[in-house]
Amino acid sequence: MLTVNAYAAPSATEPLVPITIERRDVGAKDVLIAIRYAGICHSDIHTVRGEWGEIAYPQVVGHEIVGEVTEVGSEVTKFAVGQRVGVGCMVNSCRECENCLAGMENYCLKGNTGTYTAVDRDGTITQGGYSTHIVVDEDFVLRVPESIPYADAAPLLCAGVTTYSPLAHWNAGPGRRVAVVGMGGLGHMAVKIAAAMGAEVTVLSQTLSKQEDGLAFGAEHYFATSDPATFSELRNHFDLIINTVSAPLDIDAYLRLLRLDGAMVNVGAPPQALPVHVFTLFGNRRTFAGSSIGSIAETQEMLDFCAEHGIAPETELISADQINDAYERVLSSDVRYRFVIDTATL
Amino acid sequence: MLTVNAYAAPSATEPLVPITIERRDVGAKDVLIAIRYAGICHSDIHTVRGEWGEIAYPQVVGHEIVGEVTEVGSEVTKFAVGQRVGVGCMVNSCRECENCLAGMENYCLKGNTGTYTAVDRDGTITQGGYSTHIVVDEDFVLRVPESIPYADAAPLLCAGVTTYSPLAHWNAGPGRRVAVVGMGGLGHMAVKIAAAMGAEVTVLSQTLSKQEDGLAFGAEHYFATSDPATFSELRNHFDLIINTVSAPLDIDAYLRLLRLDGAMVNVGAPPQALPVHVFTLFGNRRTFAGSSIGSIAETQEMLDFCAEHGIAPETELISADQINDAYERVLSSDVRYRFVIDTATL
Repeated sequence: MLTVNAYAAPSATEPLVPITIERRDVGAKDVLIAIRYAGICHSDIHTVRGEWGEIAYPQVVGHEIVGEVTEVGSEVTKFAVGQRVGVGCMVNSCRECENCLAGMENYCLKGNTGTYTAVDRDGTITQGGYSTHIVVDEDFVLRVPESIPYADAAPLLCAGVTTYSPLAHWNAGPGRRVAVVGMGGLGHMAVKIAAAMGAEVTVLSQTLSKQEDGLAFGAEHYFATSDPATFSELRNHFDLIINTVSAPLDIDAYLRLLRLDGAMVNVGAPPQALPVHVFTLFGNRRTFAGSSIGSIAETQEMLDFCAEHGIAPETELISADQINDAYERVLSSDVRYRFVIDTATL
Repeated sequence: MLTVNAYAAPSATEPLVPITIERRDVGAKDVLIAIRYAGICHSDIHTVRGEWGEIAYPQVVGHEIVGEVTEVGSEVTKFAVGQRVGVGCMVNSCRECENCLAGMENYCLKGNTGTYTAVDRDGTITQGGYSTHIVVDEDFVLRVPESIPYADAAPLLCAGVTTYSPLAHWNAGPGRRVAVVGMGGLGHMAVKIAAAMGAEVTVLSQTLSKQEDGLAFGAEHYFATSDPATFSELRNHFDLIINTVSAPLDIDAYLRLLRLDGAMVNVGAPPQALPVHVFTLFGNRRTFAGSSIGSIAETQEMLDFCAEHGIAPETELISADQINDAYERVLSSDVRYRFVIDTATL
């Protein structure tokens, strides 16, 4: 067992505090990673505050992890000591269900093993990336290309693949009109990736306050959703809408922006049921769908795509003692566009 | 102008009564059809009772029409006098929008011209098929193959194409598990067509009362949705669910029956907004979609498919004076499976 520094939530209502946790011994197929950077995802905040269900405390969160391999198990074949690697939202899956066998571990029918709050194979609760080290089965570790700046690579492991996967699956590319709803951590990555795929990208944000950024990231158009004219002007317009907003929006209003066979895909995760009129779906044969992170293969594909296209998230590097302040700033949308923790400060 | 017999709703609350209506003169591109049979669709009832919005009265409904061509306009090229033809849910469209230009007139962005209650090109309100004659532009007339029994052909024009179109679009076929929700006019056609396409068909009906029929129509499995075990047993099971029910169902419960990349497609048209949880869509990357009738090309394709595979709806032939009783029987699900009016009795 390895005792390592981390930052944990002691309860749903208290600030995160320094802590030490145990990491399991490096098994035959495991990789020990010295974490260098960990991104802060909005999911981390929902989770530690119990907004997505009760969890055990203390809990270390963080599922945007990059670092260096410092030890490998005897049967590890994919990684070597010193290699730059990443870990995203999951660290295992059942490997037996039809989705796992199809290489879609993110849709594991028994539920993939989340990087935090899940029951690990040894019965312990998984603890995430706000930590100096982590031990992960090599099948759930990613290669981080050298050309991606180290700290910037972290947010790709969740925000990157969560937007890349539906953009790739629903064929964002030349000749396709793609809207990105919300310009936060996920949204700004969706804009960069969709633009790199060759799509005509439009940002739909509450206000125009981030318009300059959106256009710099590759969007061709930028509209404020607080302006009702946006919804009349863009009616029947998009092939694909990626909704990154976790608040409950008027889904019908956005669906009406889809042209024939268009799809609105939620990656944002509002807990409430959202009302949808079937008559809105009838028009243009529209679809409303969800997409949950991405498979390990897609995550690697995304990292390689970002390296090839020079795509990196916009990040603000913080020290561990700034995590609680950063949470408040995420909640007030005061971040452009992703906080990354320097784990040397843990 | 041609004065013809019909059966019309005088108001939203009165029974249908005999009436005479005017049909326009046969234009250069028009076909005059002597209607032989007209199916009764649940939509007819919703419409005349004002449940889908206010309409003008008196109103003749009916959009499952078959008959013989008795006159053609000077520029008609597709049809000849004496030919067996059909007319479905629309009689025109704008012909200019991107959907019309793509051959998907059913999704005309200006709204296709419905066979009844729509504003026709001459400014009059379209009147439907409970009538002895109708004048329709040849581009919205279908060829009815000789091998399909005449009276049985009528329901194909709505119930047939409304289910054929999503089954074809979402790739029902060998190796695909397709569920049909509801065993009414649409549902029984969906079962026959999906089975003929080679899919493994399951019926999800409130009770098992029509099980024998469902299996005879080609379903391999039949489950009662009143039994909660159905929803646990079939979880993550289907590639495609065609929902023909116009009442508000628990959409989340049905979505959970979809396996990876499965789609639930509504052809039933509940007017209420239906609550959907995004977390249900996240699982298996599910989609919830709508499909509205089918294009003219798809309708012809469906008629030819039914002729090739010997598919016909189950019908009960009635005379005009039985229409009001038939409406009550449709509402109480006391029809196996489609009423067809013999227009000789009008």
